[in-house]
Amino acid sequence: MNFLGNSFSYQDGQLCCGKVALADIAESAGTPIYVYSARDITAAFHAYDEGLAAIPHKVCYAVKANGNLSVLRLLAAAGAGFDIVSGGELFRVLKAGGNPSGVVFSGVGKTAEEVDYALRMGIHSFNCESEAELALIDAKASRLGKTASISIRVNPDVDAATHPYISTGLRQHKFGVDIAEVEGVYQRARALRHLSLDGVSCHIGSQLLSTAPLLDSMDKLFGLVERLRGAGIAITHLDLGGGLGVAYQAGQKAAEISTYVAQLTERMAGRDLKLMLEPGRSLVATAGVLLTRVLYRKQNNGKEFVVVDASMTELIRPALYQAHHEIIPLRKTALGTIKADVVGPVCETGDFLARDREMANVLPGDMLAVCTTGAYGMVASSNYNARPRPAEILVDDTGWRIVRPRETFDDLIRGE
Amino acid sequence: MNFLGNSFSYQDGQLCCGKVALADIAESAGTPIYVYSARDITAAFHAYDEGLAAIPHKVCYAVKANGNLSVLRLLAAAGAGFDIVSGGELFRVLKAGGNPSGVVFSGVGKTAEEVDYALRMGIHSFNCESEAELALIDAKASRLGKTASISIRVNPDVDAATHPYISTGLRQHKFGVDIAEVEGVYQRARALRHLSLDGVSCHIGSQLLSTAPLLDSMDKLFGLVERLRGAGIAITHLDLGGGLGVAYQAGQKAAEISTYVAQLTERMAGRDLKLMLEPGRSLVATAGVLLTRVLYRKQNNGKEFVVVDASMTELIRPALYQAHHEIIPLRKTALGTIKADVVGPVCETGDFLARDREMANVLPGDMLAVCTTGAYGMVASSNYNARPRPAEILVDDTGWRIVRPRETFDDLIRGE
Repeated sequence: MNFLGNSFSYQDGQLCCGKVALADIAESAGTPIYVYSARDITAAFHAYDEGLAAIPHKVCYAVKANGNLSVLRLLAAAGAGFDIVSGGELFRVLKAGGNPSGVVFSGVGKTAEEVDYALRMGIHSFNCESEAELALIDAKASRLGKTASISIRVNPDVDAATHPYISTGLRQHKFGVDIAEVEGVYQRARALRHLSLDGVSCHIGSQLLSTAPLLDSMDKLFGLVERLRGAGIAITHLDLGGGLGVAYQAGQKAAEISTYVAQLTERMAGRDLKLMLEPGRSLVATAGVLLTRVLYRKQNNGKEFVVVDASMTELIRPALYQAHHEIIPLRKTALGTIKADVVGPVCETGDFLARDREMANVLPGDMLAVCTTGAYGMVASSNYNARPRPAEILVDDTGWRIVRPRETFDDLIRGE
Repeated sequence: MNFLGNSFSYQDGQLCCGKVALADIAESAGTPIYVYSARDITAAFHAYDEGLAAIPHKVCYAVKANGNLSVLRLLAAAGAGFDIVSGGELFRVLKAGGNPSGVVFSGVGKTAEEVDYALRMGIHSFNCESEAELALIDAKASRLGKTASISIRVNPDVDAATHPYISTGLRQHKFGVDIAEVEGVYQRARALRHLSLDGVSCHIGSQLLSTAPLLDSMDKLFGLVERLRGAGIAITHLDLGGGLGVAYQAGQKAAEISTYVAQLTERMAGRDLKLMLEPGRSLVATAGVLLTRVLYRKQNNGKEFVVVDASMTELIRPALYQAHHEIIPLRKTALGTIKADVVGPVCETGDFLARDREMANVLPGDMLAVCTTGAYGMVASSNYNARPRPAEILVDDTGWRIVRPRETFDDLIRGE
């Protein structure tokens, strides 16, 4: 099951995470529910961190993929830095015991309050997206008597060949500064006394199955570093962002972390640069499943529907990105397969988890795992249709525990 | 401004809701923030309710469009019933003082717990979507010693000519029972002793700009009612669902509520049927705006971007449905117009509120109203990118007040 981490396997016909039968978690803690494997998350982090051991580096986990405090604690303990995109994410990192000196702050719309908060907490650096933002950070740093470490996010105009909503490196996107114009921006930024122009950064998109566009971007950034250094700007780190994809479908091939970091290590040799990476999905996606129970089977005009208790409110990726997630039974059956739409209770045609899917012939009461949902699952959940958000479970070597409780009806109306 | 209710107008160059300048609300309570007009909501409800005065009817507000307790209280006080799609929505209605005897329960994935809760609270009726659901409701009613009033949701196979995600009446959709098969379902349901087969229902989709598909569906349901009555099933009400659209764009024409209810009244004459409607969007969409502040202006490769502090986390409709929302300044300017993408701080290319939009030439610090966002705005908001959800404001004849406070960072991690 390439679409799940190594912790997941069938044992005696039961889908397990480590030694824990997922059906036991679902029976005890209810459905829908997210379950994450601590072991798979730390294994993926170590694949990055140990694979880059030969060069100066920092692996900064992209909190937006899965910001649960227990997930952040795991990664902080393993030595990760953090890539944040908001004040709320910085708050999460600090609550989880993350060291602010390992935090990079990305994003196109940092507010004045967020910049101030990040400077006061002493983060490592800002990945800046525009000249107006540089001016804002300089002003805030000046007021606090600090110097802000800066990378400018470069838009290298590399096509990431991914979904249009998660490709970010083309010139018509909102992100970054065009590589053809960025040297001028660095030059003008030298006048800003409270900025230290230490890095160059990029992030070309998400869910890249091949490393080629990432390596192309790196080569473009190497050229930029040389030109900036030639102009007297002492660049010390290169932040290549995130973007490495995972297999969402049986049979799909995604580049291995180990392959990627070997390619990066080779290219970094002798450059006197620290490499920063911002992986998110590739650390947590295959470490998570969303468990759901079958409510009904129904047919409309010969078309088969499996109605489950999870929906677009728990997992919006199928509706928003037409994303494919494998859906497998928690207990193997001998009933063969059906072809069906897997849909949730939400009153929208867009509320589906799979369409025309060949899948196990499940009956009401049976339980399913929606796979590869450790990233961009819970973080994008909503209360649409007044649905309480699900619980989150972490499985580690000691067993399983609730790391975020299921919301109650009272939670829905808090403050109203 | 056809895309806003009558309460909204420019006064001395300031966009106001009633007598309240929206900029004052934004300065005082912060941005992003939702603002709703109580007057526009009740006016739209009265347009339905009074327009149907000549016939037996009940207008059941579709809570999923905007479930804020203060909005529900307004509508309950005006005499509305409620269309719910979950236990959480029933909880909201009851908390707002809604009468359970005016509640209809729709939705394709009602759980056993939700059915039990609705029966115990004594709701008016269930709109049932499958034979398995009929069996579940019968079993639950039997255990409680009750009789459940039932309509079966018919799939009339009428093309609602709307966005594929919000069209629901085609035979390949998950909703309802095919009209060609539904008489058999009613016949078999007669054997279920704790069901009272009182109604027929349908809901063909959302955001219909013309009433023709709704009237076509009504005609199909009339035929069904005749056939069922001929077979000895005493149908007493017809639930036509919701679906009436609103103008989202300047110049767009949507059927008036008054026109629609006049058409319905004419068709209902002499049928000895109670008409139920489930309007959502047409009651609240134009009564709401999302206020946002401009953070940055930037250009990439000649393309203009206006970066604002609202995003897909407050309003997912542009990303999810490619929905158009008019965006207008809170203070009129003399700076002319620009053509720009309006984008938020979220790190996704899909995080946009408008693309290639001719709009006011705004500067950082200026404020904008994202219009027609009273429906399917706040209810579908998320905490993605660890963004606290915005506050909601209700403006009524006495002024404005916060009806849901802005979330804090501490709210983000509750229970973790």
